[in-house]
Amino acid sequence: MLAVVKQDPAPGAEVREVPIPAFGRTDVLVKVKVASICGTDLHIYNWDRWAQNRIHPPLIPGHEFCGEVAAFGDEVTSVRQGDFVSAEMHVACGKCLQCRTGEAHICQNVKIIGVDANGAFAEYVVIPESNIWKLDPGIPQEYASILDPLGNAVHTVLAGEIAAKTVAITGCGPIGLFAIAVARAVGATTVFAIEINEHRRKLAREMKADYVIDPSKENASAVIMEKTGGLGVDVVLEMAGHPDSIRTAFDIVRRGGRISLLGLTSKPIAVNFSEDIIFKGITVQGINGRRMYQTWYQMTALLKSGRLDLHPVITDRIAMKDFSQAMARLKTGEASKILVYPNGTK
Amino acid sequence: MLAVVKQDPAPGAEVREVPIPAFGRTDVLVKVKVASICGTDLHIYNWDRWAQNRIHPPLIPGHEFCGEVAAFGDEVTSVRQGDFVSAEMHVACGKCLQCRTGEAHICQNVKIIGVDANGAFAEYVVIPESNIWKLDPGIPQEYASILDPLGNAVHTVLAGEIAAKTVAITGCGPIGLFAIAVARAVGATTVFAIEINEHRRKLAREMKADYVIDPSKENASAVIMEKTGGLGVDVVLEMAGHPDSIRTAFDIVRRGGRISLLGLTSKPIAVNFSEDIIFKGITVQGINGRRMYQTWYQMTALLKSGRLDLHPVITDRIAMKDFSQAMARLKTGEASKILVYPNGTK
Amino acid sequence: MLAVVKQDPAPGAEVREVPIPAFGRTDVLVKVKVASICGTDLHIYNWDRWAQNRIHPPLIPGHEFCGEVAAFGDEVTSVRQGDFVSAEMHVACGKCLQCRTGEAHICQNVKIIGVDANGAFAEYVVIPESNIWKLDPGIPQEYASILDPLGNAVHTVLAGEIAAKTVAITGCGPIGLFAIAVARAVGATTVFAIEINEHRRKLAREMKADYVIDPSKENASAVIMEKTGGLGVDVVLEMAGHPDSIRTAFDIVRRGGRISLLGLTSKPIAVNFSEDIIFKGITVQGINGRRMYQTWYQMTALLKSGRLDLHPVITDRIAMKDFSQAMARLKTGEASKILVYPNGTK
Amino acid sequence: MLAVVKQDPAPGAEVREVPIPAFGRTDVLVKVKVASICGTDLHIYNWDRWAQNRIHPPLIPGHEFCGEVAAFGDEVTSVRQGDFVSAEMHVACGKCLQCRTGEAHICQNVKIIGVDANGAFAEYVVIPESNIWKLDPGIPQEYASILDPLGNAVHTVLAGEIAAKTVAITGCGPIGLFAIAVARAVGATTVFAIEINEHRRKLAREMKADYVIDPSKENASAVIMEKTGGLGVDVVLEMAGHPDSIRTAFDIVRRGGRISLLGLTSKPIAVNFSEDIIFKGITVQGINGRRMYQTWYQMTALLKSGRLDLHPVITDRIAMKDFSQAMARLKTGEASKILVYPNGTK
Repeated sequence: MLAVVKQDPAPGAEVREVPIPAFGRTDVLVKVKVASICGTDLHIYNWDRWAQNRIHPPLIPGHEFCGEVAAFGDEVTSVRQGDFVSAEMHVACGKCLQCRTGEAHICQNVKIIGVDANGAFAEYVVIPESNIWKLDPGIPQEYASILDPLGNAVHTVLAGEIAAKTVAITGCGPIGLFAIAVARAVGATTVFAIEINEHRRKLAREMKADYVIDPSKENASAVIMEKTGGLGVDVVLEMAGHPDSIRTAFDIVRRGGRISLLGLTSKPIAVNFSEDIIFKGITVQGINGRRMYQTWYQMTALLKSGRLDLHPVITDRIAMKDFSQAMARLKTGEASKILVYPNGTK
Repeated sequence: MLAVVKQDPAPGAEVREVPIPAFGRTDVLVKVKVASICGTDLHIYNWDRWAQNRIHPPLIPGHEFCGEVAAFGDEVTSVRQGDFVSAEMHVACGKCLQCRTGEAHICQNVKIIGVDANGAFAEYVVIPESNIWKLDPGIPQEYASILDPLGNAVHTVLAGEIAAKTVAITGCGPIGLFAIAVARAVGATTVFAIEINEHRRKLAREMKADYVIDPSKENASAVIMEKTGGLGVDVVLEMAGHPDSIRTAFDIVRRGGRISLLGLTSKPIAVNFSEDIIFKGITVQGINGRRMYQTWYQMTALLKSGRLDLHPVITDRIAMKDFSQAMARLKTGEASKILVYPNGTK
Repeated sequence: MLAVVKQDPAPGAEVREVPIPAFGRTDVLVKVKVASICGTDLHIYNWDRWAQNRIHPPLIPGHEFCGEVAAFGDEVTSVRQGDFVSAEMHVACGKCLQCRTGEAHICQNVKIIGVDANGAFAEYVVIPESNIWKLDPGIPQEYASILDPLGNAVHTVLAGEIAAKTVAITGCGPIGLFAIAVARAVGATTVFAIEINEHRRKLAREMKADYVIDPSKENASAVIMEKTGGLGVDVVLEMAGHPDSIRTAFDIVRRGGRISLLGLTSKPIAVNFSEDIIFKGITVQGINGRRMYQTWYQMTALLKSGRLDLHPVITDRIAMKDFSQAMARLKTGEASKILVYPNGTK
Repeated sequence: MLAVVKQDPAPGAEVREVPIPAFGRTDVLVKVKVASICGTDLHIYNWDRWAQNRIHPPLIPGHEFCGEVAAFGDEVTSVRQGDFVSAEMHVACGKCLQCRTGEAHICQNVKIIGVDANGAFAEYVVIPESNIWKLDPGIPQEYASILDPLGNAVHTVLAGEIAAKTVAITGCGPIGLFAIAVARAVGATTVFAIEINEHRRKLAREMKADYVIDPSKENASAVIMEKTGGLGVDVVLEMAGHPDSIRTAFDIVRRGGRISLLGLTSKPIAVNFSEDIIFKGITVQGINGRRMYQTWYQMTALLKSGRLDLHPVITDRIAMKDFSQAMARLKTGEASKILVYPNGTK
């Protein structure tokens, strides 16, 4: 089969023929219909410090996808051939405290398919039955390959109260953009989007953020304070991972508010614990992955009811053989979510 | 001033001149612009068993309204003359356990203006400063007099998780109808409305319930089980107070779901605790009034953001002098929320 | 091996030799060291209406036990021979909504070992690896066979806020007695125990309930109202399943309080929804089984820290061959928790 | 009357005669029986940077006390002369969002008696009726003057789940010591106390912490990891406000755990958001004051039930005239909570 292969511990990746993978008694072999590209894939491609520490080539990356069940092991009971499926790519151990108390998304021994094992930038991918998510026919197929990052957004938005609240989203990559749609769908009453890249700001407006702020030109805190009557926002969803946006998050959250952190940072950032957290009585949460599988049920319900219009986020569609071009597009900052078709775009 | 007066412990009420009420140092005198009629007012008018036990004539009823600040006591600091206001009519004692722990809506010593003291079916009404709610200019004035019942709906919908959930509303009086709009606005993904009166079902459709069921012609449980894949709904908002609708509530709620009870019942109803509650692991909540003042902030935010279209619920507008005609309209079952204008309809 | 066998659909059971059970690739064969008797086992023995509907003889009952790992299937990875273990006997399907959202204790397809499959009143019992609970060496072995009912108590007590709260427990069978100890250990500040049987009241006093009330001689509501300054209790744990105790539960819970229902009822009971639930703004919860596996971690932590003295509840120890005598002891109402030794009492 | 007076914007304070304060219609004049000294009082005495920014001399400090009602304004209804009372010294505005939604402890406009207005190091102090806390006769009088800091501890411990959890307390000043007792009383199963001062470590042992660690001699993280089987603690209560203890907090909290921050820091501290918060999926809370008045009810219930032995924390008792000696004692690090008697020690 054709696959994107990170062969060596160095920048780049190649698209070439590899054997169709073998699968075990409890596994499902899925024929990939569409995969999509995450920022993580760019880290792996660029072979940055994080990738050097985490990735062990050779590896087929790719952890966002949908496809059809091609075959399965003899202990699998819940799928049939031809079922249209996606999957949770965090494979939790099922045996640690977190897994056994409903917190599998922070499993102590998690393995990520596409990071720690061969992933979905290929014609076929192997997934344990436990991680298969059967796609409800009511869900727009257009969205079937982007459930992983949509799940990040749903998990972050719903990690605390959100109905009838004001929300600021710092960073409008694909997850931030999804979060705009999700927050609106579940009753956030004003959504501020803060983003420095003009392409992303344009998309944020298309996603119907109430206010889209360019922090390189406007004082984001001042704007938000004015629009909230000096109060600040009830909820900040931090999705940039940049020191400036994290500083802004603490500045704009109201007393008693919540900051949910999803955006990864690359170095330590100073916080004034007394002024930023204690006196304001705020709650700061670290958000990781998606709840297994509460988030998946929530996504399905929201998509099925037509509550989410995610089309603006999908900016590019490419054939898998052109994978390197997709990497180039991401680097320009003009692309948001790129769909990858193993057998060429339709 | 002109007022609706329940003079005697007997059916009926009269519209006549009474003195403008006096007010104390911490009170606000409000010139009523619009009041609206609640089912409770019909109970008082009809002088049914509940009214006979609770009401001490003479009384000016009316507990839903908006108006302008006309005057205020010398210790009042938060309003100015001419401010456009509504009010929470449950006057909590402020000193009981419930009041001092954020649960003033279930105060042990609550007095309700319009029930236990003279209310808003009059040109002027006296409200303690603590209970005044200043109306945000961003709120449609059309809705300013119906915040009390809208608050019941918001309190009930938001009494538990609701985003990405399926919801059934049993009983589509004004609060049930409001609940349809609120549930949709905060991310309920399917809303079932169950109502026996055809006028109300028509309104439920206008409020955009996904499914409107007539339990006199359809098997509500069967319909809901089919539409939810045999699961049942995540949340039931019980707003009819009828034995049949309460029976339905227990039948249609899914394992682990929630039933929030708002509709008042007039006699005991048998429940099979093991089958209905324990084996299903459900939660049943009693809902009373509105949270002071969290619900008011939530309503304001939802209305201001344009998330709620409540127009279908307002079916009638009358001059206060025609109060008895409004009572007659309610008895036909054709009217839903009726607005009352002390000085004639605009 | 020796086992208690319910051979026919009729009252009684016999103790006789049966084959050691076979086990599958993901199963663990446990040599039972101690089992204990639940009220359910008496229902099965007596062959009452519930048993007639649920049980399909022949069956080896018994769902509370501890023992040593004797053997296991080739896919089992988490135990070794000789490990001292207990088990969660509710085998959840792992595939329904409830199982996949952290609510496996209300799985739609649960099977109970000892009810739907052969259980622990035998020298050996087969348990799926997923349901094995390895016993922390810090836990008193004395308590290792009673974790199932202790788990019911922990689940019920911790199903809502409990620290610094007043609690009433209606019904002092073994689970009610355990609940006294658990409630005290987690900060309940006053514990009322209500129980009609004098043997059980004696045990409730030994478990250190603050007040032990005989509702056949005292007015339980009046006593509790007096001791709580007219307020009522914050939390009621209903563990009798009797119409009178359920009536009491609604009478004594304070406004805004919680009633957690564990005791199974055999027929419908009338509730005045307005007075009992809505006006008081209370929450009523159905409690089922134990959280998998949060409750097990909580139990382990409480036992290991020495916070729970459960000795008074264990009133009898018998050899398995004398199983019928245990049934007779239970019927007298004098026994509470009876331990059963497959190979004779030590 | 005699009072401690901070006359000038400079270090020190004097004890001298001042007029008994006047009081308003809604105020209560309390004759102080015992006051106690907080670290804040030492800051004011020392006139450090914080004090220079916040305090406007002349001021009578002191915000922990108990006493008897001496007189009250004509609108006060809930106390009688001679009532034994304490008070919440954070006077909330009652009109901001936080106050009106049950979060008065983070009021936008709070004034603190003893910081922003004359306090309790005097024979008499004036308190608004709303802030008076009548002391239940069941509470040991010994503890009546230390409810303010005990309330900080109760608020911090109960700010999240605690029953059956492992807890680390970093910093064993009076509030940290109280937190040990509170955590144990509400079911924390292992309490680690981390403290560099040997006097405080001795007190931590007297308060029955399970493990008392000197971070200057032992590797606190290593000890805790070993004692928790490599997992880390469920909950960290950070009460030192020191960069080292905050670093330790992030190191020892388990995945999915909670850090509740009470200890004030004087400068920014660097946090590795990805490693410390996001990947671990933890929750970090800022804790401020006490919940009005939920915390007060909780304290009362815990004290009344005899669940808290706080005696070790009270190390010194002095007459108010010797106030400067108390300051000197605090500076030695040997004293913990010091009680101050306006009219000499008993």
